[in-house]
Amino acid sequence: MILSVVGSPDSGKTTLIEKIVPILKKNGLKIVVVKHHAHGDFEFDRKGKDSWKFYESGADVVITSDKKTAMIKRTRNEYNLDIICKKYLSSYDLVLTEGFNRAGKDRIVVLNPDDDIERFKKGKILAVVCEKDVEGYKTYRHEQYEEIANLILRFLSSSLDSNF
Amino acid sequence: MILSVVGSPDSGKTTLIEKIVPILKKNGLKIVVVKHHAHGDFEFDRKGKDSWKFYESGADVVITSDKKTAMIKRTRNEYNLDIICKKYLSSYDLVLTEGFNRAGKDRIVVLNPDDDIERFKKGKILAVVCEKDVEGYKTYRHEQYEEIANLILRFLSSSLDSNF
Repeated sequence: MILSVVGSPDSGKTTLIEKIVPILKKNGLKIVVVKHHAHGDFEFDRKGKDSWKFYESGADVVITSDKKTAMIKRTRNEYNLDIICKKYLSSYDLVLTEGFNRAGKDRIVVLNPDDDIERFKKGKILAVVCEKDVEGYKTYRHEQYEEIANLILRFLSSSLDSNF
Repeated sequence: MILSVVGSPDSGKTTLIEKIVPILKKNGLKIVVVKHHAHGDFEFDRKGKDSWKFYESGADVVITSDKKTAMIKRTRNEYNLDIICKKYLSSYDLVLTEGFNRAGKDRIVVLNPDDDIERFKKGKILAVVCEKDVEGYKTYRHEQYEEIANLILRFLSSSLDSNF
């Protein structure tokens, strides 16, 4: 299942994800977080390292160790969330995205008290995370990590049920 | 096709790959380099960055920008070259590995003048790169990048022919 955590910059999306992942993992879920790097480009490695050199030379790169594998590939603008999920993420129980508002996936909206929810009204809104209540939505405070994780677990469970 | 560049540490494998990739790319090949990080673990990102935080929280991570996509996943010892190639690298014309001697793939062996070729005698040896000739093998000097790239192109072409 894909679930997006959307909201304005600095509303607390990263922290929320960072805190709920361990709780969800304890429940046996295999989770991947997809982050969109919107402004400019990201560096995956330090200048001068072998993997950086290989990428700069024009090749895509895979690095493996005994513990993890990293893959870095050239992709285009149109390389969207659905393609990524289909090609690479089918083995995960839960794909959490940070951002990807326009992809219109089911979502949790994280807001600062003065933010307007309007532009995040795409897809199904499971809950809003905000320090004040938002009318029409189940609202959690930022630090209700356990409760939010439980909401996701229930949603995941009901989604699986409806697939059978 | 998978081709390994093997040899002792500091024999010049990285530089060779870095120099031949642009030549091979000019010939229209889509290339990925697979590197085995043998000693300890590698860091794919800087401590404190969002993607680092997500990984540390227990999730695997995908980062996308308009130009590239990086994926970092937990894998085990037994996550071997064949699995990586089959699952993720089937769209490439050429998979170049740095190292992976024991995988036994077709290879170019890069040697310092005093190195013994014996332990790299697995799989088919296309050529040896060394500053002195090695008996029984077509030997190139380290900076014969064009010639080595051409050898790979010919090998790739003949492999494709034999598949039809």
